[in-house]
Amino acid sequence: MKDQQCNFCRSDAPKLSAEQAQAEMRVIPDWVLVKDADALKLKREFSFVDFASALAFTNRMGAFAESIGHHPDLLTSWGKVEVVWYTHKIGGLQQGDFLSAIETELLYQREK
Amino acid sequence: MKDQQCNFCRSDAPKLSAEQAQAEMRVIPDWVLVKDADALKLKREFSFVDFASALAFTNRMGAFAESIGHHPDLLTSWGKVEVVWYTHKIGGLQQGDFLSAIETELLYQREK
Repeated sequence: MKDQQCNFCRSDAPKLSAEQAQAEMRVIPDWVLVKDADALKLKREFSFVDFASALAFTNRMGAFAESIGHHPDLLTSWGKVEVVWYTHKIGGLQQGDFLSAIETELLYQREK
Repeated sequence: MKDQQCNFCRSDAPKLSAEQAQAEMRVIPDWVLVKDADALKLKREFSFVDFASALAFTNRMGAFAESIGHHPDLLTSWGKVEVVWYTHKIGGLQQGDFLSAIETELLYQREK
């Protein structure tokens, strides 16, 4: 568990270059790589049948985030949740953000 | 209760003009009036001590939204929640959005 935590949230993890991040995108084809205030971020919108289902997913994401000590931005609105992963401390993406996006994908597929 | 619901979420409520909306802003001085994709919206960011407290507020907002049948956009991130009210159906603001913002303010003051 300690090792797994490390993979997600190492504060000393190297920041990926734009080229490295772009190459990693193949593992999460439904996500987009965006540049926001000079930081690269991973973004995907997930759809739900209503507000309550969207909020339930936000809470599952919240529990996951607390378990790994790394927190996404979660935009909850009627029938959708937009999830954004990046690492605030390094102002960009590290390997753990891709692992977090993959886990997000699994959480959605498993329980939607 | 039925009357109260009506105040918040009437789908036949008149859309406020930019001038009317601006005049209403005096009742919610900590909020900003923004234009997003041609729609006027009410926005405020609320601060919290950590992610869990922010997510708890998102859930209180969710319960309130479900109770009135009118749903804001809720951007939850570490230590903050950005709340955006507007009425999708009319592509802008109605009186109920201001009532919702006032209630949001009260929920934050009461339980932060």
